[in-house]
Amino acid sequence: MLCEIGNSCYHFKQNGKIWKAAVRSTPKLELEKDETVYTISVNETAMRRLARRYRTFDLEPFVNLDTLYYGLGVDRAVACLAVSTGVLVDAGSAITVDIMRDDVHLGGFIYPGLAKFQRMYAQISPRLQKAMNFAIDPESLPQNTAEAVSYGAVMPLISAVKTLARNKPIILTGGDGGYFARYFEDAIVDHSLIFKGMDKIIKEF
Amino acid sequence: MLCEIGNSCYHFKQNGKIWKAAVRSTPKLELEKDETVYTISVNETAMRRLARRYRTFDLEPFVNLDTLYYGLGVDRAVACLAVSTGVLVDAGSAITVDIMRDDVHLGGFIYPGLAKFQRMYAQISPRLQKAMNFAIDPESLPQNTAEAVSYGAVMPLISAVKTLARNKPIILTGGDGGYFARYFEDAIVDHSLIFKGMDKIIKEF
Repeated sequence: MLCEIGNSCYHFKQNGKIWKAAVRSTPKLELEKDETVYTISVNETAMRRLARRYRTFDLEPFVNLDTLYYGLGVDRAVACLAVSTGVLVDAGSAITVDIMRDDVHLGGFIYPGLAKFQRMYAQISPRLQKAMNFAIDPESLPQNTAEAVSYGAVMPLISAVKTLARNKPIILTGGDGGYFARYFEDAIVDHSLIFKGMDKIIKEF
Repeated sequence: MLCEIGNSCYHFKQNGKIWKAAVRSTPKLELEKDETVYTISVNETAMRRLARRYRTFDLEPFVNLDTLYYGLGVDRAVACLAVSTGVLVDAGSAITVDIMRDDVHLGGFIYPGLAKFQRMYAQISPRLQKAMNFAIDPESLPQNTAEAVSYGAVMPLISAVKTLARNKPIILTGGDGGYFARYFEDAIVDHSLIFKGMDKIIKEF
């Protein structure tokens, strides 16, 4: 069994099935006798909680991404391991964009998650406190304030990803990953990237 | 004399000279007898303060920008009047991007000012609370978190402006306008756009 432990959820994969559980309590797992739960975690408390009840094995020391990036989150690094060449967009409360070429991580940037923009616009001016609709059309210029702030949050990111991708594939993951698919021709949505990265680490043992 | 009244400052132009004064108090102006101060204002309190002491004339009813945009701020509209064809970037606490073609305003979007990003990243995670350096190199991918958040704030906007500009000129204004000049070949920095727009309105009387 594989388990990615994030700030709010455990994400599990077992026999091809993927599911999640809140980190507030110890999840109930159906495991074979002595079955190991392989983990990648950015949440120490939740990691310890899982380790008290089950036999766990932390894959973090075996994450070996070819990169010059200092301080790359382990979850981000493991997802990158699953992509040989491409632009990886992981869209959640933050949106990380990482560039891979021939199994080398060339670098990446961090953009605020779309939900954060609404709060930020409201902090700038009450006139910008608008209900946002992120389903913009990049080809259609905004004609009012609500459209202008929604477009301003989404279109620059799309434009940046296209600029960096050139002819490389674009792989979308994370809670809002599927949402971005409409903006790219031939983008791949893959919510199991991190598990693919974990599988790769285990196979290389 | 021309005066643009913003949220924090009066901006004056008289005899080719431009200067500003805080809106907290009534500015001291040297005017000819019966000289009129032509104004454009987004700040009613400051507007009334000026009008109590000087002879003012509000140009707002005469702003006649050809646009379908509903609710365009009067300062933004007047700056657009000064641009026949081009992409106008006004970078302040918010960054507005407006597209003009043959004296028609085609639409525009609003991006948070760069200073707002730092706060937004900190709200997402303490790990993203980094001193930002907005002097990024768009061609050089970030290799640590501080670079990743700075690049994430600046590069998507640059990319969006380039995408929309194609071969149109890019005109930069506002407090952070000059800062963006390095990112565009042949961008024009013009801090007197709004006064040029006001001049145009007066000439058309």
